[in-house]
Amino acid sequence: MKIVMIQDKIVPVEELESVYFDRGMFFGDGVYEVMRSYDGRLFAVDEHLERFAHSLAGIQITGVDMALIRSRIRRAFEAAGLANALVYFHMTRGSAPRDRVWSADLKPNFFLAVSELSDNAEVKANGIAVSTFPDWRWKRCDIKSLNLLPNVMACTEAARKGCGEAILVDESGLITEGAGSAFFAIRGQTLQTAPLTANILSSITRKYTIKAGKNIGLQIVEESLTPEQAASSDELLVASTTKDILAVVKFDDKVIGDGKPGRYTKRMAEEFRAFVA
Amino acid sequence: MKIVMIQDKIVPVEELESVYFDRGMFFGDGVYEVMRSYDGRLFAVDEHLERFAHSLAGIQITGVDMALIRSRIRRAFEAAGLANALVYFHMTRGSAPRDRVWSADLKPNFFLAVSELSDNAEVKANGIAVSTFPDWRWKRCDIKSLNLLPNVMACTEAARKGCGEAILVDESGLITEGAGSAFFAIRGQTLQTAPLTANILSSITRKYTIKAGKNIGLQIVEESLTPEQAASSDELLVASTTKDILAVVKFDDKVIGDGKPGRYTKRMAEEFRAFVA
Repeated sequence: MKIVMIQDKIVPVEELESVYFDRGMFFGDGVYEVMRSYDGRLFAVDEHLERFAHSLAGIQITGVDMALIRSRIRRAFEAAGLANALVYFHMTRGSAPRDRVWSADLKPNFFLAVSELSDNAEVKANGIAVSTFPDWRWKRCDIKSLNLLPNVMACTEAARKGCGEAILVDESGLITEGAGSAFFAIRGQTLQTAPLTANILSSITRKYTIKAGKNIGLQIVEESLTPEQAASSDELLVASTTKDILAVVKFDDKVIGDGKPGRYTKRMAEEFRAFVA
Repeated sequence: MKIVMIQDKIVPVEELESVYFDRGMFFGDGVYEVMRSYDGRLFAVDEHLERFAHSLAGIQITGVDMALIRSRIRRAFEAAGLANALVYFHMTRGSAPRDRVWSADLKPNFFLAVSELSDNAEVKANGIAVSTFPDWRWKRCDIKSLNLLPNVMACTEAARKGCGEAILVDESGLITEGAGSAFFAIRGQTLQTAPLTANILSSITRKYTIKAGKNIGLQIVEESLTPEQAASSDELLVASTTKDILAVVKFDDKVIGDGKPGRYTKRMAEEFRAFVA
C-alpha cells in the first residue's frame, strides 16, 4: 500500500493505526457476541462462550484461548461496575493489507464494550409492533458474524414505521426470525418457532424461551410460520439477550389479540425472570 | 458506553479514535469500489462512480458529493505516482455507539488506499485453476457492500486448493459468478454468462468483456450455467477490475481444452487491451 486517504487527508501508511486495516472493516471478517447481566450477575456466560467458539470455528479463526476471553469479559464487567450491563465483544481475523485470502499468521483483534442497559419497563408492559422485511441475509446465519448490513437495513426500516423489531421473511415465504431476536407465536396451547435448520441463529434466549413455554405447559412446535399464520396467532413474542421476552402486539397492520401482551407471554416472561434471578 | 477493552487493555471511551466505533466494523455498514489505472490513466472512472452511487443509494447513505469523491480519487492517484495503480475506497455510514438502527445525522467515513498492481504476466499467460464453492452471499449482491465474509471464505478455500478464484454455485445448482470476478464460458460460437438478475454484481469488467466477445464475433448468451456445463465448455474465463480477462484452464478437477488459455479468450484479452489503451 503506498498511499492512504482518510476523508480528505492523505496520510502516510506507517502513521495509521492497525485498526484501519482491520479485516473486520474491509470484509466483516469477524464474529461477535452480546451478553448481559441482571442485578450484577452475568447471564448464560458459558452458553455465549460456547456459541462464540462455534462462530470462530465457523470462519476458521483458530487458536483463541477461551479462558482468556472469559477473563477479559469478567474484568471489563467488574471495572464497569454496572448492575444491568450490556457486554458486546467481537473478534476479527486481524489487520493486514486488503486481500480476500487470509494468511495463517494473522493475530486476531479483540474489541469489547460495556454499556448500561436502559430500563425498558414501559416497552415490556405495552409490547411492541413489528413489521416484516425480506430476509436478505447470507446462508450461514448459524455464525454470528459482523456481516450485519441486511439486519441493519431491516431494523432501520422497522424503526421508521414505529416498530420495535423487523421480522424476516425468506424467499419461500416463511418467517425465519427477527433481525435481532428469535420470533415465537402462541396458537392455542402451542408455542411455535422456526427450527434451527431454517438458517437462523442458535439463539440462547430462544432456548430459555422454549424452556419457559414448557414450564407453563405449552407444547413446543419447531416449524416455520408464514406471515399470515403469525398475524392470526393468539399471541406473538420476540426473544433476545438484551430484551429477553417481549410481547408483540401488532404484526404489520394486524393487531394481535386485544393489542396488549397476552397472558401466556406474561407468564413466560415471569418464568424467564426466575432463570436469571 | 462505559468501558471499552482493546485486546487486553481497558481504554477510556473518550480516548478512542472514532474509527473504533465505525459502523463499517460493527455491521459492515458501508460500500466500496476498486478501480485501476493502466499506464498512468485511471480506467472506467465514470462507471465506477456510477456504481458507487448505486451502492450508496442501495443502503441509503445519502448526500454524498460525487464530485468530491472523484477529486479525492484523482488527488490520491496523482500523489501515489504509480503507472499501474489499484485504487480501493470505501464509505461507511459513520461512527456511533453500536445500534442497528442508524440515525440520520451520521457523517460518513471515507477510506481510500492506492497500491501498486503487481505484474501478473505469467498468470495471464498460463491461466488459472478455479474451484467451486457454495454461494452463501446475501440477496443484494447488486450492492457492493463491505459484507464480504462469504467471499473471503470462498477465496481462501480456493487458494488452499491452489486455485486463483472461487466460482460460486447457488442453491439451485447454478453458477452465479466468481467470488471476486465475473465468470464466462465459451461454447462453440457463444460467450455465456449469468444474467444480472441472478443476484450478481453489475461488474464493469463484465460489460467490457461482453463487448470484447461481440467484437470478435461471438454470440452473447446471458443464461446461468451449471458446473457440469462449465466443465464441458470449450473455454472458460473470469473478468475483474484487477485482473481484467484471465483464462481458466482447470475447473475443479476438469482440465479445460488443452489446459492452456483458449484462442477466443486470447483474442478477447487483446480486444480488452484496446479498450484500456
